[in-house]
Amino acid sequence: MDVESKVLARNDEIALRNRVWLEERGIVAINLISSPGSGKTMLLEKTLDALGPERTPAVIVGDQQTDNDARRLARPGISVRQIETLSSCHLGAGQVERVLPEVAGDGVRLLFIENVGNLVCPAAFDLGERHKIALLSVTEGEDKPLKYPVLFHDAPVVVITKIDLVPHLDWNRESCLRAIRTVRPDARIIELSARSGEGMRTWLEYLEQLG
Amino acid sequence: MDVESKVLARNDEIALRNRVWLEERGIVAINLISSPGSGKTMLLEKTLDALGPERTPAVIVGDQQTDNDARRLARPGISVRQIETLSSCHLGAGQVERVLPEVAGDGVRLLFIENVGNLVCPAAFDLGERHKIALLSVTEGEDKPLKYPVLFHDAPVVVITKIDLVPHLDWNRESCLRAIRTVRPDARIIELSARSGEGMRTWLEYLEQLG
Repeated sequence: MDVESKVLARNDEIALRNRVWLEERGIVAINLISSPGSGKTMLLEKTLDALGPERTPAVIVGDQQTDNDARRLARPGISVRQIETLSSCHLGAGQVERVLPEVAGDGVRLLFIENVGNLVCPAAFDLGERHKIALLSVTEGEDKPLKYPVLFHDAPVVVITKIDLVPHLDWNRESCLRAIRTVRPDARIIELSARSGEGMRTWLEYLEQLG
Repeated sequence: MDVESKVLARNDEIALRNRVWLEERGIVAINLISSPGSGKTMLLEKTLDALGPERTPAVIVGDQQTDNDARRLARPGISVRQIETLSSCHLGAGQVERVLPEVAGDGVRLLFIENVGNLVCPAAFDLGERHKIALLSVTEGEDKPLKYPVLFHDAPVVVITKIDLVPHLDWNRESCLRAIRTVRPDARIIELSARSGEGMRTWLEYLEQLG
């Protein structure tokens, strides 16, 4: 087994432990993956505001450096934990395992994991989540699913973000949806703008039926 | 020496060979790095159109999969070569070395290397270029230089792209420039829109004095 395969096998072993840990406590974890700047943090900000602390969501957020996102996401009664990955381009199952007991305490039902902004590395590392969600902003171009097929193949849900900007772009919706479905024919696609609020209801209903 | 350090040391050795090879032929190579969807390919399209084949630019373009970008960049008389990195999140010096003689043939003076869309991995891998150029689109948020400081520290030039979209965003120019200068105080910052053409003249003048 080469080094890369060993690292992945070790990661998958821990991810399995995380999955069992979460399962036993009835916690659904979703792993949000996208390019840097696709709007993961803003989507989470609006989502936490909509859910409120009584729904007891919790958040683990990974970034190469800074705790900017954790500060943006901080809200009374909601547990948020930042992991700085430093030289690494993705969160690993071991990093998540170490913070799980602290971040996903009593009553937590929904755990958002905001991965490092990156379409390649995070796709390869299972964290123990129920499933991955890929985000794709309308400013990024329609062909990203074809260029980064590993992620878009693994994500049963794709959130198209920043749709309020569509009137100002040459974005072709049909071509984007086709690219997603080429890589994953059964993908559930949710189109929204966290800024304008358009499509947020569909996203919140989707989260609702996860739990 | 751990495995990661060995891989990097091996890469740096080849990068040095590439650097010497390019130097001997009077070719300036620049390594363009950004998030997926920041507009690297469109900037190159407009740049190649402006330079024309008589200026003999050449392009190496990396993507995890597809040759979409090479097809977008194809122009008569300009040498373009796509490298599919598959499971890897960055171009490596060895991949570049293998295509250099073919892509940077007689008369080439300026070689653009469009790296895989990613702010983490490509920053660590020297390809033998004169220097890195970081691209940052105004849709990505102002704090990316602080979150991905390795790249923005290593790039003496930062191109802020898609400025035609500024009126439709909450983008704060001062805060973005400050984030860049925090990580690299002497960064040269070029603001442009490849789509509207604004700022393109400054970019082309910059390229002019490179050669």
